Amino acid sequence: MSVYLQDIPLPDAKARLQSALKQAGLWRVLGMETIPLDENAIGRVLAEPIWAKISSPHYHASAMDGFAVLAEDTLGALPSNPITLRVGPCEGAQGKPEACYLDTGDALPEGFDAVIPIENVESLDGRGEVTPAIRGPAAIRIRATVTPWSHIRPLGEDIVQTQLVLPAGQVVRPVDLGAVAASGHQFMKVACKPRVAILPTGTELVPVGSNLKAGDILEYNSLVLAAQVKAWGGDPTRFSITPDDFEAICRRVKEAAQEYDLILLNAGSSAGAEDFSAQVVEKLGTMLVHGVAVRPGHPVILGMVSLREATKGNDEAIPSPEEIDYPSGTISSGNERHPRNDSIPIIGVPGYPVSAALTGEIFVEPLIAQWTGRHPQELPTVQAYLTRKITSPGGDDDYVRVVVGKVGDKLLAAPLARGAGVISSLARADGLVLMPRGVQGSEAGDMVDVRLYRSHAELDRTIFCIGSHDMILDLLAQFLSTHNRRLVSANVGSLGGLIALKRGEAHLAGSHLLDPETGKYNLSYIRQYLSGISVKVYGFVGREQGLMVRRGNPKGVKNIRDLSRPEVHFVNRQRGSGTRVLLDYQLSKIGISVEAIHGYDQEEYTHLGVAAAVASGRADCGLGIPAAAQSLNLDFIPLFQETYQLLIPTVFAESDLLVPLFEVLDDREFQQAVVNMPGYDVSQMGSLMADV
Amino acid sequence: MSVYLQDIPLPDAKARLQSALKQAGLWRVLGMETIPLDENAIGRVLAEPIWAKISSPHYHASAMDGFAVLAEDTLGALPSNPITLRVGPCEGAQGKPEACYLDTGDALPEGFDAVIPIENVESLDGRGEVTPAIRGPAAIRIRATVTPWSHIRPLGEDIVQTQLVLPAGQVVRPVDLGAVAASGHQFMKVACKPRVAILPTGTELVPVGSNLKAGDILEYNSLVLAAQVKAWGGDPTRFSITPDDFEAICRRVKEAAQEYDLILLNAGSSAGAEDFSAQVVEKLGTMLVHGVAVRPGHPVILGMVSLREATKGNDEAIPSPEEIDYPSGTISSGNERHPRNDSIPIIGVPGYPVSAALTGEIFVEPLIAQWTGRHPQELPTVQAYLTRKITSPGGDDDYVRVVVGKVGDKLLAAPLARGAGVISSLARADGLVLMPRGVQGSEAGDMVDVRLYRSHAELDRTIFCIGSHDMILDLLAQFLSTHNRRLVSANVGSLGGLIALKRGEAHLAGSHLLDPETGKYNLSYIRQYLSGISVKVYGFVGREQGLMVRRGNPKGVKNIRDLSRPEVHFVNRQRGSGTRVLLDYQLSKIGISVEAIHGYDQEEYTHLGVAAAVASGRADCGLGIPAAAQSLNLDFIPLFQETYQLLIPTVFAESDLLVPLFEVLDDREFQQAVVNMPGYDVSQMGSLMADV
Repeated sequence: MSVYLQDIPLPDAKARLQSALKQAGLWRVLGMETIPLDENAIGRVLAEPIWAKISSPHYHASAMDGFAVLAEDTLGALPSNPITLRVGPCEGAQGKPEACYLDTGDALPEGFDAVIPIENVESLDGRGEVTPAIRGPAAIRIRATVTPWSHIRPLGEDIVQTQLVLPAGQVVRPVDLGAVAASGHQFMKVACKPRVAILPTGTELVPVGSNLKAGDILEYNSLVLAAQVKAWGGDPTRFSITPDDFEAICRRVKEAAQEYDLILLNAGSSAGAEDFSAQVVEKLGTMLVHGVAVRPGHPVILGMVSLREATKGNDEAIPSPEEIDYPSGTISSGNERHPRNDSIPIIGVPGYPVSAALTGEIFVEPLIAQWTGRHPQELPTVQAYLTRKITSPGGDDDYVRVVVGKVGDKLLAAPLARGAGVISSLARADGLVLMPRGVQGSEAGDMVDVRLYRSHAELDRTIFCIGSHDMILDLLAQFLSTHNRRLVSANVGSLGGLIALKRGEAHLAGSHLLDPETGKYNLSYIRQYLSGISVKVYGFVGREQGLMVRRGNPKGVKNIRDLSRPEVHFVNRQRGSGTRVLLDYQLSKIGISVEAIHGYDQEEYTHLGVAAAVASGRADCGLGIPAAAQSLNLDFIPLFQETYQLLIPTVFAESDLLVPLFEVLDDREFQQAVVNMPGYDVSQMGSLMADV
Repeated sequence: MSVYLQDIPLPDAKARLQSALKQAGLWRVLGMETIPLDENAIGRVLAEPIWAKISSPHYHASAMDGFAVLAEDTLGALPSNPITLRVGPCEGAQGKPEACYLDTGDALPEGFDAVIPIENVESLDGRGEVTPAIRGPAAIRIRATVTPWSHIRPLGEDIVQTQLVLPAGQVVRPVDLGAVAASGHQFMKVACKPRVAILPTGTELVPVGSNLKAGDILEYNSLVLAAQVKAWGGDPTRFSITPDDFEAICRRVKEAAQEYDLILLNAGSSAGAEDFSAQVVEKLGTMLVHGVAVRPGHPVILGMVSLREATKGNDEAIPSPEEIDYPSGTISSGNERHPRNDSIPIIGVPGYPVSAALTGEIFVEPLIAQWTGRHPQELPTVQAYLTRKITSPGGDDDYVRVVVGKVGDKLLAAPLARGAGVISSLARADGLVLMPRGVQGSEAGDMVDVRLYRSHAELDRTIFCIGSHDMILDLLAQFLSTHNRRLVSANVGSLGGLIALKRGEAHLAGSHLLDPETGKYNLSYIRQYLSGISVKVYGFVGREQGLMVRRGNPKGVKNIRDLSRPEVHFVNRQRGSGTRVLLDYQLSKIGISVEAIHGYDQEEYTHLGVAAAVASGRADCGLGIPAAAQSLNLDFIPLFQETYQLLIPTVFAESDLLVPLFEVLDDREFQQAVVNMPGYDVSQMGSLMADV
């Protein structure tokens, strides 16, 4: 069976699920368990409010180390008119003394109504002489009147018996444990953790750690989903991989339905030849939604699995759903989990990793919130300027991953790669921008709302580097991370970096733009593109450029001239990159037209991208740096020497933010790490080359 | 030995600790361990950067379900000029077909360079007829030219081998697991968790769950500290309570020093008669700091315990510090923990619960950050207006707990109880305001920086209720918490509530101000204090007021007149409270002067506070509500009936924020819960009584 998806709007999809859950009696906390007060309670959700069983303090307590007195006895004491009080044991047989010593926290004995801190008394021996002993004097002398109840923490000062200490739904934090304990509790009732079964399916899937061949897909969505479930307060179980086999998947789903509150079936949720999720859901229960108008992640399935269906065909006697006995190991002691209903929800999670993670955020997180009684998570939202245009399918809620940085006073959001397969874009993302259904995108410079994954403080220490790609930027990022800075670099080519600086959208730009007239780097471009901006130019690296070819150079490429040979497939860098400028300059010098080069229009944004294209046979050669060739085990034909510099507006060059950058540039360990890569010269690293 | 503390400034204290740790070789990550990629990795800190071992995808992958083709073969295809391509198995013996079917993620076979999505082709049977079969047709017909590499995810599209995937110091999040797995890793190296020993000491301490007598102190600081340590990424161990015995404490510290990276000794860090921490630290190592100029929490000890000292006097053969063998149970496999140095840090944590928790935040959190290589936690900071004056000792960094709410466009910070013993203030706190050393406080209306414990979204759904105290506000808070609202109430008395409304510092105020002239409630006060503001008055509860006395009414108090009897001690409510207004009105009616009443000046801010004062014998009677009397098992002498109303500025009464409030007021379950408490009438609850 193959179905075309009918993407329905996200709110409608959520409403259908919610209504099915309500009907099944599953739109509530799943149950509660009683747990002791300890560090494992952190993050659990209170299922019942905490009302104080006792007051705190539960007696009148001395707030200081000092002497209990009766305030009346101190009346009239003045610096010039000290009063002496006889000291004795607080509770003794020899009659009540006029003062007795208390440590902080000691109970105020009967017959006293104030405490005088030890530093405000003179200790006297029996004969009225001041003694050095602080404790155990025969008498004390005081020179001020005290008011009743001074330096006493009266009963109930903190918490009065019966008052509300914490409301139900509170996510327990460390200090809450103190308040709960202080109010006389030894245990708390918290919501049971929803048990979530994660079922990876797919014949092409292989476990992490496998030896890979083409077509194998590493199964890591279950890792991400399990970690999400755990972070949100659920109890995840990862099943082993099930091949694309309708019956096998049915068996697994039935098995999971016996013990879990939610099943995540990943993937097979689309409408391809091997996509069985929809059939499985239809066979074992009810399909609620197949396809949601969100991007990435639209081929989502929402359904309910009938427990009656799920127990059919089992060999053992089938208990009716009401009587199912849970294996005791899966349920915590003190459990008061509600009895199982007739069905449980199942979510068909799409296979692309970004789609899978987003499906978790959109559907699984709110469900766990509902089932544990807490508020759904709310990411902080900020407004930021888009650095480039986003186009969006108008029919979908479109989630765009962005990196965020603060350049001057401007918060900027730079869109990352859009592909649903690019898990690295989710790991790199600082936040999400939602282009809602009905909106077809936003222009560069538009203000957008960003749901932040990172704190403002992290953004404040982020260095935004936009410009030319060099692999050393990764090394620099790693070194800066130990210097309390986060380097975010966007690879848009040297010219793109200059434009970003002009717009105030980067702290610095890496650039290697050759001026064909002067043979010098960057200066003429800075004058042209950054007029009116004071910019400092720092040396970074000298580097080789040359042709990357597969091992053994099967096409026998030797120089730029060979690119025009008909059997040679080239892969290019994007327009505006320094490497493209270099290529065009060299081609024009020898009079070769770009039309003569196969693949001149095939563009990559990074040296590694070019190297990957060559390594995989998508092209025979590309122009780039030796480090990229070495990374992917390619041969390298050195052709040119060039200068790669850092362009930094003076206002940023002199800012605190960039101090660690210059420290790293001066760091011999960093320089050594750079020259350990092939083709680099660091002799000018960190030197001020020009001040424009 | 008794020492007076020498409070030194916080930065100096931190610098001394840092310098001692550097000298001991302990100012770095403590070591690393290798862990698998699973949900337990969340929150761990990467000890080494993740560089990609493989590219992702590691082959050219079809991005869609569709047909692999050679782009050249599609040249010239147009809607009016379809091209037919022969379909065959992708890898077969019968010669290469012109198109072959691929599922999403399948590897692009040799000899093809593009994919046409299934929805863009017509399936044909062998004779050129369009067939319904989507898969396995004999041929396909296409009506558009495709470009090379379309609908293909080329090798390395996501991650290229050797690139930086995640920097060291990254706190692992769920999506990071995906990126790490995709880049070819099965394990990660993360920082070892610092092992923290928490040693509660004090003869007066009793474990949570004990039967309490006066003077017993519930030991829950270790709970809070352990939970903090765990939340920050450490591995806490709570020791049992050690009595105040110098030798016993020494033995415990020595024992802990063998196995742990940090010792938290709580309490005994001050200079009282039973405070041994300073002596213990001096005996077993070096005292760095005794007393830090922070409030609350100044009697902090920072020191180093010498492992050589700590192993002295042990019965067993004493290994030299370099050779200590760790019990294998405490260390994870794959451990590469650095060898132990000569000493470990010890922190003497003050005993007051707020001080203890704050000492954790100020000293322990940054230390765990340093030892795990992550950035110290940074609470988001907002600016808010202080609702009332704060006075601060100029010599200390003074941390003031505040609740935060947004009233209209104004973010407000209302200071909570200041006492170091008030753990509930920390549980209730939405944030901290730091009054730095050298600053003696701030005025009401000043703008202050608040370090937030809660998200902005939580603040946005917070209802700020300032005014008269009634215990039903706790019930209301609990009900509102299930309606997606947080009720924060500050008890400043009815008149204080009106003033807060006038200043725009509350969404609503509870009030029961009797106008002696008219015998009516609130209206004349609203006209006087809230002129120019449109206010709606809603019925809340009718309630009894009367005298609370201890069981059996030992002083035989019957009415207001009895308060002037010399042997009767009264406890009053604060000026501006409706109950105080009521008392003064009744006293003037019968001609009793306030001077005649013992304890007239002793003020409490809540009905429960008054009840606690009576229950504990601090006073014989007080005026208040029967629910408070019942809570603390007091007798109640009913005297008056009064009307307690909610005053809500129209602008808020009509806002979305308050919709759930009216839902709760209309909720029969809530009304029932109210009348279950003694002395309440809900007949007017939620009714609009006046529109002023």
